Amino acid sequence: MAQSKENNKLRVMALGGLNEIGKNMYLLEYGSDIIVIDCGIGFPDEEMLGIDLVIPDVQYLVDNAEKVRGIFLTHGHEDHIGAVPYVLQSLNVPIYGTRLTIGILKNKLEEHHLPHKPILNTVYAGSSVKAGVFSVEFIRVNHSIADSCALAIKTPVGTVIETGDFKLDITPIDGEMMDITRLGQLGKEGVLLLMSDSTNAERPGWTPSERIVGESFDDIFMKNADKRIVIATFSSNVHRVQQVIDKSVRYNRKVAITGRSMLNIVTAAVELGYMKVPRGSLIDISEIRRYPPEQLTLITTGSQGEPMSALYRMAFSEHDKVELGPSDLVVLSASAIPGNEKMIDKIVNELCKKGAAVFRDTAVDVHVSGHACQEELKLMMALTKPKFFMPVHGEYRHMQANRDNAIEVGIPEENIFISDIGRVLELDGESCRDIGTVPSGRVLVDGYGVGDVGSIVLRDRKHLAQDGLIVVVATVDISERAVISGPDIVSRGFVYMREAEEMMDQVRVIARDALQESLDAGITDWTQLKANVKDDMQKFLFQRTKRNPMILPVVMNV
Amino acid sequence: MAQSKENNKLRVMALGGLNEIGKNMYLLEYGSDIIVIDCGIGFPDEEMLGIDLVIPDVQYLVDNAEKVRGIFLTHGHEDHIGAVPYVLQSLNVPIYGTRLTIGILKNKLEEHHLPHKPILNTVYAGSSVKAGVFSVEFIRVNHSIADSCALAIKTPVGTVIETGDFKLDITPIDGEMMDITRLGQLGKEGVLLLMSDSTNAERPGWTPSERIVGESFDDIFMKNADKRIVIATFSSNVHRVQQVIDKSVRYNRKVAITGRSMLNIVTAAVELGYMKVPRGSLIDISEIRRYPPEQLTLITTGSQGEPMSALYRMAFSEHDKVELGPSDLVVLSASAIPGNEKMIDKIVNELCKKGAAVFRDTAVDVHVSGHACQEELKLMMALTKPKFFMPVHGEYRHMQANRDNAIEVGIPEENIFISDIGRVLELDGESCRDIGTVPSGRVLVDGYGVGDVGSIVLRDRKHLAQDGLIVVVATVDISERAVISGPDIVSRGFVYMREAEEMMDQVRVIARDALQESLDAGITDWTQLKANVKDDMQKFLFQRTKRNPMILPVVMNV
Repeated sequence: MAQSKENNKLRVMALGGLNEIGKNMYLLEYGSDIIVIDCGIGFPDEEMLGIDLVIPDVQYLVDNAEKVRGIFLTHGHEDHIGAVPYVLQSLNVPIYGTRLTIGILKNKLEEHHLPHKPILNTVYAGSSVKAGVFSVEFIRVNHSIADSCALAIKTPVGTVIETGDFKLDITPIDGEMMDITRLGQLGKEGVLLLMSDSTNAERPGWTPSERIVGESFDDIFMKNADKRIVIATFSSNVHRVQQVIDKSVRYNRKVAITGRSMLNIVTAAVELGYMKVPRGSLIDISEIRRYPPEQLTLITTGSQGEPMSALYRMAFSEHDKVELGPSDLVVLSASAIPGNEKMIDKIVNELCKKGAAVFRDTAVDVHVSGHACQEELKLMMALTKPKFFMPVHGEYRHMQANRDNAIEVGIPEENIFISDIGRVLELDGESCRDIGTVPSGRVLVDGYGVGDVGSIVLRDRKHLAQDGLIVVVATVDISERAVISGPDIVSRGFVYMREAEEMMDQVRVIARDALQESLDAGITDWTQLKANVKDDMQKFLFQRTKRNPMILPVVMNV
Repeated sequence: MAQSKENNKLRVMALGGLNEIGKNMYLLEYGSDIIVIDCGIGFPDEEMLGIDLVIPDVQYLVDNAEKVRGIFLTHGHEDHIGAVPYVLQSLNVPIYGTRLTIGILKNKLEEHHLPHKPILNTVYAGSSVKAGVFSVEFIRVNHSIADSCALAIKTPVGTVIETGDFKLDITPIDGEMMDITRLGQLGKEGVLLLMSDSTNAERPGWTPSERIVGESFDDIFMKNADKRIVIATFSSNVHRVQQVIDKSVRYNRKVAITGRSMLNIVTAAVELGYMKVPRGSLIDISEIRRYPPEQLTLITTGSQGEPMSALYRMAFSEHDKVELGPSDLVVLSASAIPGNEKMIDKIVNELCKKGAAVFRDTAVDVHVSGHACQEELKLMMALTKPKFFMPVHGEYRHMQANRDNAIEVGIPEENIFISDIGRVLELDGESCRDIGTVPSGRVLVDGYGVGDVGSIVLRDRKHLAQDGLIVVVATVDISERAVISGPDIVSRGFVYMREAEEMMDQVRVIARDALQESLDAGITDWTQLKANVKDDMQKFLFQRTKRNPMILPVVMNV
């Protein structure tokens, strides 16, 4: 995008969170000021072999580093804060968030080596932060993690509201109901642009209160008084974990925690006062042998079927402290994130084989969503009455469904913008238009490597995964046009060698012939020599096996 | 299993279809006679990199080839007939099935080179076939493919009923309702063992009639009279395709078919009389330009999001005949098979981006299951009143849920056997017991290779997919303890080389040092030499990148 000389316009863009699930990152720019809303990671899809996580390409921020006034975090989920450690490698800017969000982030940053001490600022819901021309107000919303906020940003051309992830919970477990009064006030004062969560935009009605899960738990605890109860949920769902603890205390059970992230979060939440645990009710997982099953509740990670999570290890008898059997009831207090269904089914089958009873959200109300359904999304729009609307946080179909919600509330279709990452909307208070793009994309993280795995590496991994490889090694005397030694064949991931000895012998002959023929033909170019060997081998192997292993010829001159 | 000398007992076993989805295969053995029920393939799970399909290990059948009297097919789905071409490679036995089943199988067998001409026998529902001591009766059931049957097998110790895949459809589109009268008669005469479909055993109530989908189609065709309607479904669901054609004719639309398997099945079904297409209503896909959108229906493959299916190609603008846009309504008339959700979502997002409207079964009744829900499963048990019950066709949790159904109907828990592939139940008319195992398992098919990819090859593919590989090549003079040339480094799927030149230089130095040190230490064993090089490289790379690429050292002596 060409640098515009007009500086009295607000630019709104996303470096993540549009047309995808995860890695939320939204930018507001006005004159010489930029603020960033959220800074999350995404998880790799099945095409991204070996990749650990995906972060947004922040080249635009790096190029405009002197403009960036801060990163404002709406809540402490990975898809909103997970990329902070990576961005801080190249950008030293202050971070703002509520107490729990900053608490979780602090723990996370300790695992990373940063070039400078991070500037972390705790902000309370209801208060505002000045950042260049912007003023950012944190507004309480409800969500599946405590201490979540929407942001209302005063800009020179009008107020922008970014909802973060939200739902309306009239009876939250702890803390307050979403501050619809404040949102309504802002609406009466005039809102220029609403950027709203679209995750559940396809779902009609209202998302139930977290309290519904507590009622199901009551029912489960009463009817299964003779069993040990094992509950798997997201570790960050502090209120869910609180409810499990509350019910356990009520029904005279001790609670033991298993799974690293669950332990971490419970520890942090208790320290920060977001969780209340009566003295003596928590026991160490190694103490569970001292209690009969009916006096125990276990809270565990693994509700998404994650390999090597505590629940996975219990299901496959690999947990060193817990053995499951017919006296156990396992509750999966979560719904499957798309892509995880098969792994969860696998665990459920193992649990059933052990004789454990299994409850999951498909049959019992043991989970509610943290995201607003259609009526709540429309309520948000009706309260804030925005001039312009931009659905965010979702795949295309979700954003489209949210556009339809907005049309129902009466926002004119021409004032609704479904954008894409890197696209820039420019607003002057009256109009809103798409003015082009900035650099954007996804950066793959693999181990310590950030961005060193690109499409070529992924294509090779896919090729290797599909059919394996064959290395063919030979030494030639190029001046004598003679094959001196080899070719030798090494294969991995192609075929079980012992079963295919005869075929591999043929492969060796074919490689040797190709090499000798090329030498006889006077070919001295190494690339050409190797290509000839590779082509002949490939042809033979495909005809014989209908497979295309990667072939790596290594030819050396004496 | 030791060969038993008692031959007056019936043995029941499965080589597939228990504790899994797919590759159904059940065996009955009495004295010197064996019959096989179904012979299906399964699809690879995400761990089986590069694998095309999975077939049952039929070693037990090969070892007892002279006993096998025939393979009896309940219906024409891949998970019931797909392994026939592979099994016929090593076993020449007659195949029995209904007309459509045999028709589909015949087409399939033509794509394979068989050692002998297959013996295919068409059987009509209601008739019986003698096979050694057994007599096998085909009984009409309803399912998502036409011409499906259950099998009632008279054996010397009593009658065994294998339901195949079934549901009760009181108003089927074509053909007849499940023959519950005959099943009830058999029940009154006495049934020793019922082996029943368990797929939907967790779902309460009744599966709706296929006709419900037709009513939804009526609604959709009426309300979208201005659009081209594109319907994706399973090609084998002949009745579903028939309904689309019927509605199209009623609403004055021409029908075009796209997708290879859809074309194949429609052609076969029309030829065999299972589908009725009024003259002139079917047009070739290349003719669609001659009609306005509102006069067209397209029927396509790709309802599971399969890459390169016709719907996939339409969504990604790679279809050479069809371009989708705002004048299209796409109906996904199928539900997602677990594991396919993300691929389907991907296609839906692309369709939305093109402006097409999308209907799917999560919001509209455009699909019904082909499998019985709990009330139908219990009806089957109540009609046949089996002494013993063995849930089949499902993962463990499904079979367990079906056991619970059986208990509700009054079958004593001790008469219910949840078995596993390879396990043998022995029945004498009075008792039923588990007497051990026969060889069983899964054989992986990759290209033309059947069983040549095993756990080592898969482990290597996984390793390669995760972190790629590094080949290190050097020539040494072992007698002089000198490195003559190299080491050279080739990497694939590890890291983008240009970005990591400095690291790769270091890797080269480390390999060289390890080699030289080993030579200096007097090591002449090649395995040891290579191991030393590999260890040092691995340590360095993990420390530096937190990755573990596969390292292949190739060291040659001059």
